[in-house]
Amino acid sequence: MTTDFKLDITLTTQKKEIPPFDQLVFGTSFTDHMFMWDYTEGRGWHDARIVPYQSIPLDPAATVFHYGQSVFEGLKAYRTKDEEILLFRPDQNMKRFNKSNQRLVMPQFDEEFALHALKKLIEIDRDWVPNLPGTSLYIRPFMIATEAHLGVDPAKNYKLMIILSPVGSYYKEGINPVKIAVENKFVRAVAGGTGDAKTAGNYAASLLASEIAGENGYSQVLWLDGREREYIEEVGSMNIFFKMNGEVITPALNGSILDGITRKSIIELLKYWNIPVTERRISISEIQEAYNEGILEEVFGTGTAAVISPVGELFYNNEKLIINNGETGALSKKLYDTITSIQNGTAEDVFGWTVKL
Amino acid sequence: MTTDFKLDITLTTQKKEIPPFDQLVFGTSFTDHMFMWDYTEGRGWHDARIVPYQSIPLDPAATVFHYGQSVFEGLKAYRTKDEEILLFRPDQNMKRFNKSNQRLVMPQFDEEFALHALKKLIEIDRDWVPNLPGTSLYIRPFMIATEAHLGVDPAKNYKLMIILSPVGSYYKEGINPVKIAVENKFVRAVAGGTGDAKTAGNYAASLLASEIAGENGYSQVLWLDGREREYIEEVGSMNIFFKMNGEVITPALNGSILDGITRKSIIELLKYWNIPVTERRISISEIQEAYNEGILEEVFGTGTAAVISPVGELFYNNEKLIINNGETGALSKKLYDTITSIQNGTAEDVFGWTVKL
Repeated sequence: MTTDFKLDITLTTQKKEIPPFDQLVFGTSFTDHMFMWDYTEGRGWHDARIVPYQSIPLDPAATVFHYGQSVFEGLKAYRTKDEEILLFRPDQNMKRFNKSNQRLVMPQFDEEFALHALKKLIEIDRDWVPNLPGTSLYIRPFMIATEAHLGVDPAKNYKLMIILSPVGSYYKEGINPVKIAVENKFVRAVAGGTGDAKTAGNYAASLLASEIAGENGYSQVLWLDGREREYIEEVGSMNIFFKMNGEVITPALNGSILDGITRKSIIELLKYWNIPVTERRISISEIQEAYNEGILEEVFGTGTAAVISPVGELFYNNEKLIINNGETGALSKKLYDTITSIQNGTAEDVFGWTVKL
Repeated sequence: MTTDFKLDITLTTQKKEIPPFDQLVFGTSFTDHMFMWDYTEGRGWHDARIVPYQSIPLDPAATVFHYGQSVFEGLKAYRTKDEEILLFRPDQNMKRFNKSNQRLVMPQFDEEFALHALKKLIEIDRDWVPNLPGTSLYIRPFMIATEAHLGVDPAKNYKLMIILSPVGSYYKEGINPVKIAVENKFVRAVAGGTGDAKTAGNYAASLLASEIAGENGYSQVLWLDGREREYIEEVGSMNIFFKMNGEVITPALNGSILDGITRKSIIELLKYWNIPVTERRISISEIQEAYNEGILEEVFGTGTAAVISPVGELFYNNEKLIINNGETGALSKKLYDTITSIQNGTAEDVFGWTVKL
């Protein structure tokens, strides 16, 4: 990997109005600047630059449109009460970004330099980092193939970009429980596929099942494995945890689910609290049995966007499994409060997860 | 679906130089014009237009980059010796396009109008339709999600475009046999996924396996099913056929392979010739056994880009299965000659497959 480490900065002359922080809708407004970095085969990474947020012109034959080489990440920055800005485990995102790139035959990049550029970008747009509870600056690094060529081959040109969006809660429900339908027709990913890479195609593949679930009043689906349609994978675009009989269980990383950074943090936090936590294969039958025995105490999803999303109902085989009376469980709440407090700097960061700007 | 059927035309003032037809490389040069059509939720399809071929500006948050809503088609136009231009079964492509859109929760469009616009576009760029043997005008209709929104939901805005590229043979080998490695680590698609939709993510998912196969001297991989890694799906980006003991066999449409238009045409042609042809599940073990018994006579891939691509070698479990002495089989050759002759108007079109411009 050849990398030119020069970072050019061009500031906007037309600053946009920052939306009121109490009216933020997820992922709809973007800050004044963005980061761009070009990759050319044989030359490596070049022309790293922070520029005014703007449309990018692409040839209609750009391979991202046709053959889907696209990887993204999602992380957040928080404004503390002391007006400091904190990032949450950004090194983990950069590492996973490169891992996804490998699966999609896209070029590796220098993680430290990208992180440096990211910090610089947030510094420039720091007025956009919101400070109300539940708000944050959502950070979207992504890479797309830009070569104009019709042919199923890895592209020779790419753009790595970072855009920023001030956000409120991902789900309209906030920390309120969501209803989830167990999906038994459609499959998100299978071992040997791209399920553990953060690539666009995985999300495109998930839309139809979510649409159908939505029509039936469910906000997400719980994916089962593609081979036996029996083992639990993840929920919507989050990892999933079950609390049964005092023990917390989450599907092991099996190659077809995402290695979530919130997931990883929850596991570390539970271990720190001496709450039993296990990563293993879990079948939907086991969940159903635990429910019938009355030992299914809590269910929650984890992800950067929602942090913790309690599940109040699971719908499977025409049966409604009502979890914890449809209310947010005590552990789910404690995890949400702890993680978000570490993230926004109101709790002590015993793990060294946060990075100051 | 609301459709505004007006088609605006803006001609270029700077015509490009048409590349020499004996030096065409697949998918690298594009004609002077392109077709664009916009979709807005609540308004439907509008602003259908033929404009000079140009870059399209997209917001960095355009959902195609992040969540992969993208569908494409591929078909070809041929110039006959009488200077007529023929399309091959374009109605089938438009139909499949809409079927893929459904799977990706993308809007349906009026197929007849799109075909009308396509014909008009080719008419305008008709000088680009090559006339040498093996050459054609490759047509790439595609649709992408353009809404600037970070959130895993179907987009509210789309663009349907058509671009044109004069092409020679897809494989450097031409009609010469290719070597194929049977893939037993990576999976292209699984039932319940998007394998039967022509969407970008499927192709992105296939690249790593092809790269590794390429390093070992194989130009494509033969995909096995994602559940048992035993049943044959398709090869690279083509459907596959086996001739054993005089019978032609191809995997049945099972939801995870593409419903190829060349595949369909080959089946109809074989039936017309009274050659036994069967669509059914085929295991790789069956192929290996047939090879050992000496009854595996021919193997070939089918697709719009390559038409017929004979397979000279299959590599599976460290064993090289040499098909027909590594040479193009008689039936493969006959099918290639017949289909291409119908396509370019030198043979009688008994099936009514071609459409004059």
